Amino acid sequence: MSADVLIADPRPGNRWALGIEYDGNGFCGWQRQSGQPSVQQSLEEALSRLAQVPITVTVAGRTDTGVHALCQVVHFDAPVQRSAESWVRATNTYLPDGVAVRWAQPVPSHFHARFSATARRYRYVMMNRREKSALWRHHTAWIYSHLDIEPMQAAANLLLGTHDFSAFRASSCQAKNPVRHLQQLSISQRGELIAIDAEANGFLHHMVRNLAGVLMVVGRGDQPPSWAATVLASRDRCQAGVTAPPGGLYFVAPRYPDAFALPVDAVDAGFLTGE
Amino acid sequence: MSADVLIADPRPGNRWALGIEYDGNGFCGWQRQSGQPSVQQSLEEALSRLAQVPITVTVAGRTDTGVHALCQVVHFDAPVQRSAESWVRATNTYLPDGVAVRWAQPVPSHFHARFSATARRYRYVMMNRREKSALWRHHTAWIYSHLDIEPMQAAANLLLGTHDFSAFRASSCQAKNPVRHLQQLSISQRGELIAIDAEANGFLHHMVRNLAGVLMVVGRGDQPPSWAATVLASRDRCQAGVTAPPGGLYFVAPRYPDAFALPVDAVDAGFLTGE
Repeated sequence: MSADVLIADPRPGNRWALGIEYDGNGFCGWQRQSGQPSVQQSLEEALSRLAQVPITVTVAGRTDTGVHALCQVVHFDAPVQRSAESWVRATNTYLPDGVAVRWAQPVPSHFHARFSATARRYRYVMMNRREKSALWRHHTAWIYSHLDIEPMQAAANLLLGTHDFSAFRASSCQAKNPVRHLQQLSISQRGELIAIDAEANGFLHHMVRNLAGVLMVVGRGDQPPSWAATVLASRDRCQAGVTAPPGGLYFVAPRYPDAFALPVDAVDAGFLTGE
Repeated sequence: MSADVLIADPRPGNRWALGIEYDGNGFCGWQRQSGQPSVQQSLEEALSRLAQVPITVTVAGRTDTGVHALCQVVHFDAPVQRSAESWVRATNTYLPDGVAVRWAQPVPSHFHARFSATARRYRYVMMNRREKSALWRHHTAWIYSHLDIEPMQAAANLLLGTHDFSAFRASSCQAKNPVRHLQQLSISQRGELIAIDAEANGFLHHMVRNLAGVLMVVGRGDQPPSWAATVLASRDRCQAGVTAPPGGLYFVAPRYPDAFALPVDAVDAGFLTGE
């Protein structure tokens, strides 16, 4: 790090993107909250310690308490010169065990972690068996009732496309526009593990967990697949099932235009079920 | 549970086998140790609470601190009549989160969890990348140096068969006979995850972790595959590499003669890497 030079302010041409993995357990979610450990605070403190001046980051997609991330993306304007390796390895030494920087890459000053993202990928993983899981209790949602994935996929197919997803948004959702383009909603299974992979241009607050909640109602046989379309058309949050628990939810990665050449499309979401 | 009858002593014909899943984190290993939380103590306390008399269990294969189990098997002679569902569900309510009973099945009185087992399966999972993992830090061993699995498999093939595995046993190993029959030693990869699947009629203390340690040395390119045979032939523990860390190790399941009809062969070891 002998080439590091401390400068007073962020400069054009010194914007960085970072890929961040985190374990949602032990954090109050992404966003800073007074008196509670957040991923954002952990990351900003580690970066600031490395830079020796305060650094704030902008995130691709905020996540709730207990939600994990395979490759969250942030950007920040660096007030100091550091190598990509320093932003990764030195930051990692300052981060708690539940957060890791996977990569750092310089980006043009018009790159914005949130607004440049063209899509977001999520994965929801369920342990579907009668007995609780000891090993994966922090990494899956335990669903006691038997789920049949065929009707779940039939229901999921009815939700694909561009729709007003008001029926799947939390009452706390602050988005002005409830219309989203849902490109993928795929259900897969490996033994006791069932996963839902979702991709959209953006998600409303709790949308993935509310989608998962509706698909579980169908998977249990309590509603036919067509019920998903009924819920969607209602635009009424009260029509949907319960919000699925957060521990099974993973922010996989955002997508960006190829021009930014960020290593996000290669993030492997097939863990645990392995498809 | 209205049919439950308390009787004074274990009776012939009231032997049970249980399949146990546990997360090695937070336990000093399987065996009871004064003043430290062990899986054995947790399980015996939960079973005793259900039975309202002390129950001790006999295990298929003890595991060290930090080692996980997908389907450990124990047997015990029940001093009370309980249904299989009670032994599973009621016991689970008394167990800490990191231990779960997966199934309970009555077995003949000549069944012995340890001595009836004809083989044991283990899996060792590594996160092979330069950056630490936040999400799988408790479920994989982080291996910083790049590993090439082709020479690892070539080395593994040299260890298959019936051998004196003294070079792979811990100095603390109490087994009288160091000869074991290693039926499987397979390396597989999914992206950053590399797994070693091992099956033998039995394993010496630390044997899987010492096998993994030698395969890692070969995978890094520090020794050729033939070195594994040299280490084996030496019967000298000092020849082998370091003992691989415990957090990546899983006891998958024992095998028993088909006559016992225990659901152990179906235990899926393909988690995380998904092969």
